[in-house]
Amino acid sequence: MKFNPDFEQKILEKDIPSIARAITLNESTRTEDNLVIDKFIAQHRDKLDQSLVISISGIPGVGKSTFIETLGVYLHGLGKSLAVFSIDPSSEKTHGSILGDKTRMSELSRLPNVFIRPSPSSNRLGGLGINTHKNIEIAKIAGYDIILVETVGVGQSETIVRNLCDIFLLLLMPASGDELQGIKKGIMEVADFYVIHKADGDLKTVANKSKKEVEIALHLTKNEAKLDDKIFAFSSMDKIGLETIWSSIEAFAQSQKSEGIFFENRKTQRGYWLEEEFDSQILKFYKQKYKANLTEFKDRIAKGETIHLEEIISLFR
Amino acid sequence: MKFNPDFEQKILEKDIPSIARAITLNESTRTEDNLVIDKFIAQHRDKLDQSLVISISGIPGVGKSTFIETLGVYLHGLGKSLAVFSIDPSSEKTHGSILGDKTRMSELSRLPNVFIRPSPSSNRLGGLGINTHKNIEIAKIAGYDIILVETVGVGQSETIVRNLCDIFLLLLMPASGDELQGIKKGIMEVADFYVIHKADGDLKTVANKSKKEVEIALHLTKNEAKLDDKIFAFSSMDKIGLETIWSSIEAFAQSQKSEGIFFENRKTQRGYWLEEEFDSQILKFYKQKYKANLTEFKDRIAKGETIHLEEIISLFR
Repeated sequence: MKFNPDFEQKILEKDIPSIARAITLNESTRTEDNLVIDKFIAQHRDKLDQSLVISISGIPGVGKSTFIETLGVYLHGLGKSLAVFSIDPSSEKTHGSILGDKTRMSELSRLPNVFIRPSPSSNRLGGLGINTHKNIEIAKIAGYDIILVETVGVGQSETIVRNLCDIFLLLLMPASGDELQGIKKGIMEVADFYVIHKADGDLKTVANKSKKEVEIALHLTKNEAKLDDKIFAFSSMDKIGLETIWSSIEAFAQSQKSEGIFFENRKTQRGYWLEEEFDSQILKFYKQKYKANLTEFKDRIAKGETIHLEEIISLFR
Repeated sequence: MKFNPDFEQKILEKDIPSIARAITLNESTRTEDNLVIDKFIAQHRDKLDQSLVISISGIPGVGKSTFIETLGVYLHGLGKSLAVFSIDPSSEKTHGSILGDKTRMSELSRLPNVFIRPSPSSNRLGGLGINTHKNIEIAKIAGYDIILVETVGVGQSETIVRNLCDIFLLLLMPASGDELQGIKKGIMEVADFYVIHKADGDLKTVANKSKKEVEIALHLTKNEAKLDDKIFAFSSMDKIGLETIWSSIEAFAQSQKSEGIFFENRKTQRGYWLEEEFDSQILKFYKQKYKANLTEFKDRIAKGETIHLEEIISLFR
């Protein structure tokens, strides 16, 4: 299939069905569909710098979609257009989250100039990969001011998440020092902002204590003297301090830009995604080429035979 | 390098340094090392059925290593030999968990006939993959009765975890129905056992409530009438009910065996891992073959050029 100029224009006007269609072509298993999107992105490369991409990471239950709804409605109020790539809690077997999914981002999804797209979480990397990166590029070209990417960031590589976004915001549960042990040092190191979420009711005191503990831990691991504008205790119920969080994010992005780091990071990310694309195309092409061999191997396994590594390797020599 | 018969014999006698060395060869990037281990596993294929492999999954903070320590010490008391593949909370940048890691499984690690191996969590899939599968096969050949595999199982594909183990035990936090929303239906469906952990102190009542809610959710998603011996509220502090959990696991494994499902599953798993091996060897071989092209592409990206998908694909044609 081809893009006609009308269709391209519609994407640039943030027409949601057209953007959704572009994403479908990007995620298609047909190479010809992928080529259409690749050309589209290449032609509009000058528009990729319009958006700020923020990853909202955290374990299940920390309130990622609630926080995104809160932040998103606030940003919409500031006149920003917004694209959200959320985690689709779909099951590999049936689909849907365990207790239904009707309440996710209900307010945000009704606002104009807001595009919400669930990422398939059914693949190996929880839906993150080269396709997500290209979906974000489509949203950048469409001209959304802010792109929020919901990621688990646990069990997933921090490296992937880091390479998807400009700003990495980690949501944490109010918890004691012992429980902070469970958090991988890696994800703490790569994050830019830390929000202890659910700082309300009984958990308010715990959250403020967690904030201090995260501060101490970060002073040890990161060589930053000033962390006041990086760590926050926050409640999506009372929303107190949301402006401060947002202005800190904006100030950080601005300082990154003026120090030349911001676009340098994006260039590094392009190198990372080039390699991902390269790997994914190698696998696609050669798996197709040796399809019959794989089928034969699988048949033999089913008969109780052993396939030696030697035999697999000798195929390619 | 080669195995001498002495070395093979030592593995069969559960000599820990020899097992550790076999694992190092398996994880080596040198194909010749991998071939040695592949041959070793193939030669001892008759010994793969000695062990029961149990995956202990759950989000960070749910107490996976505490539960493994509790269960492991109990199993050791029953005279079982034990291999544990734990998550190495190492950072991609520095290493180590955020607040130190000294207390992980301290009691278990001092017991004889217990082998504990941290899996590297620094790769894309949080350390899970074909290497973990083969490490488990080495432990099976060494003859450990029980092999416990600690996995995050969140952001990772349930499919990988399911294919690594015979029994999938999911640890859950005491939480209200709303928070259960965060749990992917997929992981609930594939698990065999559900343990609401930390059922002590203030959380005991919540845990028992969670147990009921999980029961209701599972009645809806799984077509099983009887779930009493599948869902437990448990505390690793008071350890009450550990025998019941263990006897349910044993009874389940036994019934799987008598119904012929157990070894049928393992055969399916072998097909899964054959394909993983196939993919990983394709990528290894052809990435080496096209190494110079990737370097050239990356150089051009660094200069601000765009690499078109067309150009990548045309390499392979």
